[in-house]
Amino acid sequence: MDIKHIEGGVCAPAGFAAAGIAAGIKKNGGEDLMMILSEADCSAAAVYTRNKVVGAPITVTRDNISNGRAKGILCNSGNANTCNADGLHIARRCCGIAAEAAELVPSDFIVASTGVIGEQLPLAPFESGIPKLVEALSGEGSDMAARAIMTTDTVKKEFAVEFELDGKQCRMGAIGKGSGMINPNMATMLIFITTDAAIDSGLLQEALTEVTGATLNQICVDGDTSTNDMAAILANGRAGNSRINSKNDDYATFASALMDVLTRMSRALAADGEGATRLIECRVLGAPDITIARRVAKSIVASDLVKAAVHGADANWGRVLCAIGYTAGNFNVDNVSLAVSSAAGEVLVCERSSRKDFDEEYATRILSENEVVFTANLHCGSYGAAAWGCDLTCDYVKINGDYRS
Amino acid sequence: MDIKHIEGGVCAPAGFAAAGIAAGIKKNGGEDLMMILSEADCSAAAVYTRNKVVGAPITVTRDNISNGRAKGILCNSGNANTCNADGLHIARRCCGIAAEAAELVPSDFIVASTGVIGEQLPLAPFESGIPKLVEALSGEGSDMAARAIMTTDTVKKEFAVEFELDGKQCRMGAIGKGSGMINPNMATMLIFITTDAAIDSGLLQEALTEVTGATLNQICVDGDTSTNDMAAILANGRAGNSRINSKNDDYATFASALMDVLTRMSRALAADGEGATRLIECRVLGAPDITIARRVAKSIVASDLVKAAVHGADANWGRVLCAIGYTAGNFNVDNVSLAVSSAAGEVLVCERSSRKDFDEEYATRILSENEVVFTANLHCGSYGAAAWGCDLTCDYVKINGDYRS
Repeated sequence: MDIKHIEGGVCAPAGFAAAGIAAGIKKNGGEDLMMILSEADCSAAAVYTRNKVVGAPITVTRDNISNGRAKGILCNSGNANTCNADGLHIARRCCGIAAEAAELVPSDFIVASTGVIGEQLPLAPFESGIPKLVEALSGEGSDMAARAIMTTDTVKKEFAVEFELDGKQCRMGAIGKGSGMINPNMATMLIFITTDAAIDSGLLQEALTEVTGATLNQICVDGDTSTNDMAAILANGRAGNSRINSKNDDYATFASALMDVLTRMSRALAADGEGATRLIECRVLGAPDITIARRVAKSIVASDLVKAAVHGADANWGRVLCAIGYTAGNFNVDNVSLAVSSAAGEVLVCERSSRKDFDEEYATRILSENEVVFTANLHCGSYGAAAWGCDLTCDYVKINGDYRS
Repeated sequence: MDIKHIEGGVCAPAGFAAAGIAAGIKKNGGEDLMMILSEADCSAAAVYTRNKVVGAPITVTRDNISNGRAKGILCNSGNANTCNADGLHIARRCCGIAAEAAELVPSDFIVASTGVIGEQLPLAPFESGIPKLVEALSGEGSDMAARAIMTTDTVKKEFAVEFELDGKQCRMGAIGKGSGMINPNMATMLIFITTDAAIDSGLLQEALTEVTGATLNQICVDGDTSTNDMAAILANGRAGNSRINSKNDDYATFASALMDVLTRMSRALAADGEGATRLIECRVLGAPDITIARRVAKSIVASDLVKAAVHGADANWGRVLCAIGYTAGNFNVDNVSLAVSSAAGEVLVCERSSRKDFDEEYATRILSENEVVFTANLHCGSYGAAAWGCDLTCDYVKINGDYRS
């Protein structure tokens, strides 16, 4: 089973066009409105934030794709359209304007918003912008679409793969945003995925939910679960494979392709965490079950003390043990081993949950790389998981002390 | 029922002496060893960290006071004696040395350590230091004892009150430390409390557990629950009140005195959070039960995004709604009102979970004070709670990127 990395983002799969424009929603005049549109009807699936306060667009999207189908995605940045008394009206009207411009019906659209919570979102930028957006749609539009959903992101996130199903070449692409207010327990950022594979919407939902659990939900930038964010996928079937309608080998291949795309997306999102200078990857081994494996990995990358220590390239491994120890669940913490590694090498810093002599200078060199890996073996089972985070820096504080201005 | 604030810390109650010295455990040569000793036998109670990785001193203390009695407290800073293979031996030996010097038995001592995790703790500083410490014990020693348990704390925490039980004047005093790695869900810092009131050890434990739930467990500096910390109380009965052995009016008075001391301690700990420039107090009203009230209050003060916004004096109230929304539990989030207040005034920023027009400049002035209060009314019940935290600053990052050096 080959999964090949390719260019093209959400426009790599056949039959998808995208565009991004500056519609006047962001105060700084940047790109802030994007659309992805399929020429054919799609199976659609999505996962949403678990925050009890949910953005109006989430509610509207849930309704629109309750039948498992959609044709397009409309998303603005610069305003979350959340905690506004007229939010639902605005979100529905956005779908209406998009439908008029694209000659579709409002429920053909997945709608999303990201930005400040609790500020009025005017319709005017959508009324003037959406017709231009539809006109700009093209097979080369993924780049601009990816840029138009960025808020405090510093790099564009865009990935695509090629794989084979049933002798047919299939493609899958994704764009994503999300830099602060990122804590899993849900698709907690905006991720839009397209594929030309043919797959039943129920199985598409299963694959998305399953893979999100191992990838997007295992990212932590700051522990804050957003009110707005979602991961959505559209599958238009243009690759011509025989439609996946059971958990057969083709389903497994499809899920692997999705795993590849969302793992790369997760790493990119964590590495671009607000103010981050280093990606932290945590691999947990030897856990008694998958839930504990995932929780422990996440607990480590979520610890402010671990994040600050990594920023200082300080091998303060006691903080990692501490984070393992306060992870919810019953498991043994007396036999933990912990290694730190990076492109500069690997060093074992703890065995049987006790200190092990190691070369501090070497550990500091390892921790000074751009990507740092903690590998924790609990030695009490056979389950493993990964999680991704970033270091905690002064820039995070600066970005978030002054976000609205 | 009068509760009068007085001076004297842990030596304010009759029959207690304390001392703090520099024993050579801290690399910088600062005070790092302290003792509190009662001239009479005490009822003893303690609450401990809920981290599964627990410091060796916690295990030894649990054993020593399992009979509900103790006479003294020994504590070092500069090394947590945690994740060391010989940690239990070291902690027991510390009690042994203290017992020899004070002519008591090892199980008379509550023992605690705070500092770096996973570094060997040598016995030599205890062997040479403890005899000097016992010699230095005095009724004026609370100040030095409070200083000797500080790590990254910038101010000493010491409080005392006077109250009356059964016609007798009683006193209670406390010292505390804790600045980072503070997240409730337990006595997550070191707090030592003394009182000359006479009270049964079972009720002493009940009062401590109950009051800790409303105070110490409602503090959050960084979300990291420490491996080591505890709150312990000694009651020597020297006030001469008739021993409290039921939940009568005297018990209520005693619990109120403890509430006063631990509320002031909680505020002081949060205000001195690592790098903090402002105290954040959150008051939650209208919750359906006490657990949800406490969780919501804590969720708000624990949010990195809220903390960073407060640092920037930015009235980004949507982040407060977001933090309410991801609090665990079933409750309605559609009718939340939120006000921000301080010495500079009060402003209502959100009603029925939607934005409310307010004067941004005035809000910034309110948020620029040293103590900032968020009052959130969920309007779905009659329970309330408070929580305390601090703003997130660059200094937090600097302190924790370089803690061990």
